[in-house]
Amino acid sequence: MHHIQQMIEAHPKTAVIGGDVLVHCINASLDCAQSCTSCADACLGEEQPEMLRRCIRLNLDCADICSSTGAILSRQTAFEPTLVQVVLNACAEACRICAEECEKHAKHGMEHCRVCAESCRTCAQACNDMMTQVATA
Amino acid sequence: MHHIQQMIEAHPKTAVIGGDVLVHCINASLDCAQSCTSCADACLGEEQPEMLRRCIRLNLDCADICSSTGAILSRQTAFEPTLVQVVLNACAEACRICAEECEKHAKHGMEHCRVCAESCRTCAQACNDMMTQVATA
Amino acid sequence: MHHIQQMIEAHPKTAVIGGDVLVHCINASLDCAQSCTSCADACLGEEQPEMLRRCIRLNLDCADICSSTGAILSRQTAFEPTLVQVVLNACAEACRICAEECEKHAKHGMEHCRVCAESCRTCAQACNDMMTQVATA
Amino acid sequence: MHHIQQMIEAHPKTAVIGGDVLVHCINASLDCAQSCTSCADACLGEEQPEMLRRCIRLNLDCADICSSTGAILSRQTAFEPTLVQVVLNACAEACRICAEECEKHAKHGMEHCRVCAESCRTCAQACNDMMTQVATA
Repeated sequence: MHHIQQMIEAHPKTAVIGGDVLVHCINASLDCAQSCTSCADACLGEEQPEMLRRCIRLNLDCADICSSTGAILSRQTAFEPTLVQVVLNACAEACRICAEECEKHAKHGMEHCRVCAESCRTCAQACNDMMTQVATA
Repeated sequence: MHHIQQMIEAHPKTAVIGGDVLVHCINASLDCAQSCTSCADACLGEEQPEMLRRCIRLNLDCADICSSTGAILSRQTAFEPTLVQVVLNACAEACRICAEECEKHAKHGMEHCRVCAESCRTCAQACNDMMTQVATA
Repeated sequence: MHHIQQMIEAHPKTAVIGGDVLVHCINASLDCAQSCTSCADACLGEEQPEMLRRCIRLNLDCADICSSTGAILSRQTAFEPTLVQVVLNACAEACRICAEECEKHAKHGMEHCRVCAESCRTCAQACNDMMTQVATA
Repeated sequence: MHHIQQMIEAHPKTAVIGGDVLVHCINASLDCAQSCTSCADACLGEEQPEMLRRCIRLNLDCADICSSTGAILSRQTAFEPTLVQVVLNACAEACRICAEECEKHAKHGMEHCRVCAESCRTCAQACNDMMTQVATA
């Protein structure tokens, strides 16, 4: 994702939240959306997808929320802290729950679940950091 | 949306949440996503879109969250109450904030904002009702 | 989806494509997106999801395209026929391919696949009708 | 987007399309979706958004298509060439049309339109390259 930073800097309004935290959180949420979409598909392609039902379902939910979060954070016009905070909270929680599930399968050698859990943990942390920034802005 | 009810009933798992409340909430969130997408576009087509910046921005955010909520509620396999609750909370809040903004412009004769505010209020209420059901399930 | 028609009529620009065909196509694409999301989840909840891999995958693809199509058709400002046509073409094709797959499983008693195939066929037809209208507008 | 490559490699099925072209196309489509979402918002925040109506509308359409394309390309289970080709075609066309519009405003000093046009051109090219690969696979 090479253009996030440039797009934030080219915006007519200065970002309410410091650029680095914001750029990192947009990047982490869109990366996590892709990892979760990919992990759901990889789980589906495994020999026993019936063992991975909960993982696939949580992957799909997490991908939906992370995509929306990435889009909402990409908007700087008429920034609305209350709305951003509930969205970040939902995203952090979805990522935490999905990471916990993926980590179970990572222990049994599922590499896509290990990578996906990493994306989820990074995104959850980025959302938590961003919430702290928004609360004190 | 003619097929929501049929799809819920045809699912191999019985819905954790009573069918009527669930079907209504899926319908309301997807209806609200469409109204918000349409309202953002209608506002953009108005003579003075610079007066409607906040409305357009909140419409786009609300559409993103409502779409995700409609998809997440459509899934019944491995239902996860904690995740569903934070998503419903974010959706209800986005709809409330967007409705308040649309209602300001509805007072000045913007019919698309009046209809959109109605969709948002209906969705916020449906999410709140659903949250109550999930909490006691 | 009670508000599509009202939103189209309240728009400051008159729709380039006659209201009925447009409203029906928006409704069909959003209905199909929901059916496909729900069918993927129902397939995942079946006893042998490994028999339904292709169906789940096509459901997810079709849901993504139908959601985008519904959003794009909901915009009337600066209507761009070339773009709309390629999107309708992709949507009609995704719906046709997904319907064919769902119909195979419907024959073996999967009711959710039967309902989903119906949504997909309706959406494919609506997209084809809309393409004819756009071509002659 | 640090994890795309790792997720593709960890998948139980080997990618039908060579990893580099595929990874680049997923990356380009998700990067373009973000640039377009951000550019629509930046245009909305400009002093005279009424001059940028067509740009905002095409940005929103392009973001929708690019997001769907990125998700569809992230799936490798039961790869379906016919569906992938129509989606890539729609994405390439949306990116081309959006790039042309953004380039008009870039000439008048809109930096966000210049960066966004760059993302759109890169994505259109990646989709075209991918279509060639799929056709000969």
